[in-house]
Amino acid sequence: MTAELRRQLASLLVVRGSGHSSDGQRRYPRWELPNAELQRLLSEGVGGVILLGGSAAELRLRTEQLRHWAGGPLLLCADVEEGVGQRFEGASWLVPPLALGRLYAQQPDRALALAERYGHCSGRQARLLGLNWVLGPVCDVNNNPANPVINVRAWAETPKAAGALAAAFVRGCQAEGVLACAKHFPGHGDTSCDSHLELPLLPHNRQRLEAVELQPFRAAIAADVAAVMTAHLQLPALDAERPATLSAAVLTQLLRGDLGFGGLVVTDALVMDAISAHHDAATAAVLAFEAGADLILMPADADAAIDGLLQAVQSGRITPQRLAASLERRQAALAAAQPPSTADRALEDLQQLLQPDDQRLSHELLELSLIRHRPGATLAGATNTGGQGLTAGPGLNLIRLDSQLNAPQLPAMAPALLRPGALGYSPIVLDARSPSPWSGDPAAPLALERLGPGPVLLQLFVRGNPFRGSAGGEEPWPAVVQQLLAAERLAGLAVYGSPYLWEQLQPMLPPELPAAYSPGQMPEAQAVLLQQLGLAAAPLEGGFSSGFGGGFTD
Amino acid sequence: MTAELRRQLASLLVVRGSGHSSDGQRRYPRWELPNAELQRLLSEGVGGVILLGGSAAELRLRTEQLRHWAGGPLLLCADVEEGVGQRFEGASWLVPPLALGRLYAQQPDRALALAERYGHCSGRQARLLGLNWVLGPVCDVNNNPANPVINVRAWAETPKAAGALAAAFVRGCQAEGVLACAKHFPGHGDTSCDSHLELPLLPHNRQRLEAVELQPFRAAIAADVAAVMTAHLQLPALDAERPATLSAAVLTQLLRGDLGFGGLVVTDALVMDAISAHHDAATAAVLAFEAGADLILMPADADAAIDGLLQAVQSGRITPQRLAASLERRQAALAAAQPPSTADRALEDLQQLLQPDDQRLSHELLELSLIRHRPGATLAGATNTGGQGLTAGPGLNLIRLDSQLNAPQLPAMAPALLRPGALGYSPIVLDARSPSPWSGDPAAPLALERLGPGPVLLQLFVRGNPFRGSAGGEEPWPAVVQQLLAAERLAGLAVYGSPYLWEQLQPMLPPELPAAYSPGQMPEAQAVLLQQLGLAAAPLEGGFSSGFGGGFTD
Repeated sequence: MTAELRRQLASLLVVRGSGHSSDGQRRYPRWELPNAELQRLLSEGVGGVILLGGSAAELRLRTEQLRHWAGGPLLLCADVEEGVGQRFEGASWLVPPLALGRLYAQQPDRALALAERYGHCSGRQARLLGLNWVLGPVCDVNNNPANPVINVRAWAETPKAAGALAAAFVRGCQAEGVLACAKHFPGHGDTSCDSHLELPLLPHNRQRLEAVELQPFRAAIAADVAAVMTAHLQLPALDAERPATLSAAVLTQLLRGDLGFGGLVVTDALVMDAISAHHDAATAAVLAFEAGADLILMPADADAAIDGLLQAVQSGRITPQRLAASLERRQAALAAAQPPSTADRALEDLQQLLQPDDQRLSHELLELSLIRHRPGATLAGATNTGGQGLTAGPGLNLIRLDSQLNAPQLPAMAPALLRPGALGYSPIVLDARSPSPWSGDPAAPLALERLGPGPVLLQLFVRGNPFRGSAGGEEPWPAVVQQLLAAERLAGLAVYGSPYLWEQLQPMLPPELPAAYSPGQMPEAQAVLLQQLGLAAAPLEGGFSSGFGGGFTD
Repeated sequence: MTAELRRQLASLLVVRGSGHSSDGQRRYPRWELPNAELQRLLSEGVGGVILLGGSAAELRLRTEQLRHWAGGPLLLCADVEEGVGQRFEGASWLVPPLALGRLYAQQPDRALALAERYGHCSGRQARLLGLNWVLGPVCDVNNNPANPVINVRAWAETPKAAGALAAAFVRGCQAEGVLACAKHFPGHGDTSCDSHLELPLLPHNRQRLEAVELQPFRAAIAADVAAVMTAHLQLPALDAERPATLSAAVLTQLLRGDLGFGGLVVTDALVMDAISAHHDAATAAVLAFEAGADLILMPADADAAIDGLLQAVQSGRITPQRLAASLERRQAALAAAQPPSTADRALEDLQQLLQPDDQRLSHELLELSLIRHRPGATLAGATNTGGQGLTAGPGLNLIRLDSQLNAPQLPAMAPALLRPGALGYSPIVLDARSPSPWSGDPAAPLALERLGPGPVLLQLFVRGNPFRGSAGGEEPWPAVVQQLLAAERLAGLAVYGSPYLWEQLQPMLPPELPAAYSPGQMPEAQAVLLQQLGLAAAPLEGGFSSGFGGGFTD
């Protein structure tokens, strides 16, 4: 009796595992359960796994292994908001959604069609690799450029566009037999701190929430989104005490009641400090379930969470009806997803992973989201596509990114390294572990004498990312651009990621300066952008040189 | 007729592919054939593939795919000289062979037993992943510490030890049904330039070659090694004109004749500049085959190589008997290797990849090869294992490695980063793309004022590696150690890789300084070494904290 109840409660947990096969390959061993524990928990009925890390081929084998360990159907999900290739190398890695929000302002129909293809591409590739649940779309409205954690992950900066695009993504993804997940309810767009690190507060009243934050969720629900993920956010106007994830006012009254959502409600990861700093694993799970969540994502301790839920059911704090409703919703979601491919189809599935249409989509998104700093842009109607390419080196290729370690956007043969290299620009890569390049002088922040002589191509990989704690705005790039211009050493500028940084820097540039912006950071984005700066494919890129996209075909 | 002959000649080629599934994942796209070309060449009869890149799980699928494309048995090989995990993450990554050469001087039997287990581990894991040919052991005698390309890859610094250990490796590996390959004939140990970049010259006469270079090859041949790989080396004493790879004097008279080798002779990669700068792909293949090679590894152009060989057979330059002999040797090698596992066993094979004995081997090798800078070492017989651990920070964790991009030894959660971090040491990572840390003053080369205040833990990842062009000896680490000691800022020293660098630095250290050397660079080596410096597992390491090796169990 208790054993069966315990299995039922365990099925409501989604624990985190690595997409890699062996424990030693885990990138975040603190959060990714070792295989022995994962296998035990699945055998005890745990019903879902969120996967991170590993290539497409590894994931294909891994999802099979997890189902084998569970002995039954599982919810297998991943944070693949920007194409499956964002997390699992070898699949399509698309430009961040915000690019489509910007297109929507000019060409709404084209943007919607692309968002739906974006969903199809993500859903189809997820399914081929054994996932049945994509943890997207982000339904947050990114109306705060300083938002360190949502930023370009959002589909738009306005509620209407965000809702329409998110709904289109949901339609595309779910048409492939893969569940989608609208997040982070009731809206994480207007915060300037990171809930991975602290608990943000949203001071808006219900009227404003209705006008802005809730709209995209209503649109996703109308598109029949299978799941909604909660936000670790304090919303005093709705609940004076508890964050959204643990609030009945938010999950039950607002989401189930007012918005009429009948699908799966899943918490954001309970292991995040915004929750785990305040509640132990058992308490957090019970509070979230009581508040209205069906699924408990990444509890700090899975066994404790199950035990906590068990006790709450046995004590009557959670009613059998409430439990049955969550179990039913989970069953309904599993039934709505297409059953997984079979083990013997692994090679075929992998060979079908990248379709010509995926390549066209990824290329089209890159082309349309590229912004070039055009000379003569003020002359209305002028179609000056010329301008000068980068002057020949020797010079410096100054690259800034968050971390060079395990950086999928910067393989050793990345266009951002090789193409300037072919022109004589030597790479200097700056990240949080580099010797300081800063002079301490705010007017001329870069210690140029340490970096060497010659013209400087500046390539900035900056975007909001979880755990960074800021959107990159604290670095003095505007002053650096001015410094390099004053020294007559700025040869070119490439911004990959944040449109806000580009909008800050672009007005400073002289009209003839080779410069461009791409929302994407992947090697393909570098190739498209640098082509515009007059940098053709370098010989070592290999696949690239046989025409664009050649580097990414299968 | 010609078509059949062309297929036969094609079967003698070994082309290079990526272990990853999709073209976009290739790490070296210039050298790794795209899938469409690989598939075509295999369908046309190309008989072997050398694989690089990809995880164990990816490789398992990849080898299956290649055999499927070929429609028949293939020679599938990889440069896994230091365990399969050296190239394919998730398998065992062992300390470099030279560690056993050093042990051999004190405990020959133990060293031999370990070398045989090293071979078993490599062979068994290679087989489980679908490889049937390990491109090791290196049979070069590393009697030149400045050797930039062999270095710690060799089994020993003396001919006898190198031969005995290489033979033990061959026995272990081939007992697992996987072919081994003695390289680089007739001996690449005594060079100080890199044949990946230029053509080295070995000035020794036949007598000296017999006394030093040839001994390990004789030992490997006596142990029935299946294959020998040629060196791109000029040996004027044997052949005034041609490098070993293209020399009949070396391959036919010396190797087949004098040494009586009846197995497969394979060239080193013909695409390397030492060959390809002087001959086109067709000429190089024909010259190598004429000289006595059976298999042509990585021709610069596979189609041209096949055409060149075809023309040479048709013109009578290559006799049918000679071709038949090579085809027979290839068949015999394939027959000697164990047939591959079946597609449906992929998950089981992966789960059996890391056995407890592999973990014990890898740990034992790390423990016995660790050298600690002991206090009181000059007092004969004193067993002072004490000494102080690292002082608490704030301080600097100054790490030097070749490249942070795609660096398997330095994942973001590496012990070398996390353990000092837990003690307050902030990482500064130096590689070829860092802003310069150098002052320009030879007596105090490190620009300390740029790096920040506090004690400095120096961690040097230095070893000979192909393509580096030097063994790391040109960097002023001795002067840096003296500078830090003079400033009373050296908190500790860790050297990972080259014993020669350690032997240079260690005599400078005061007896109480926490310092140690490991020949390994992998995270496990860092954990073992830093433990000795008083740095226990950091919480974020996860797997590590549950006892040593826990991070690497399956």
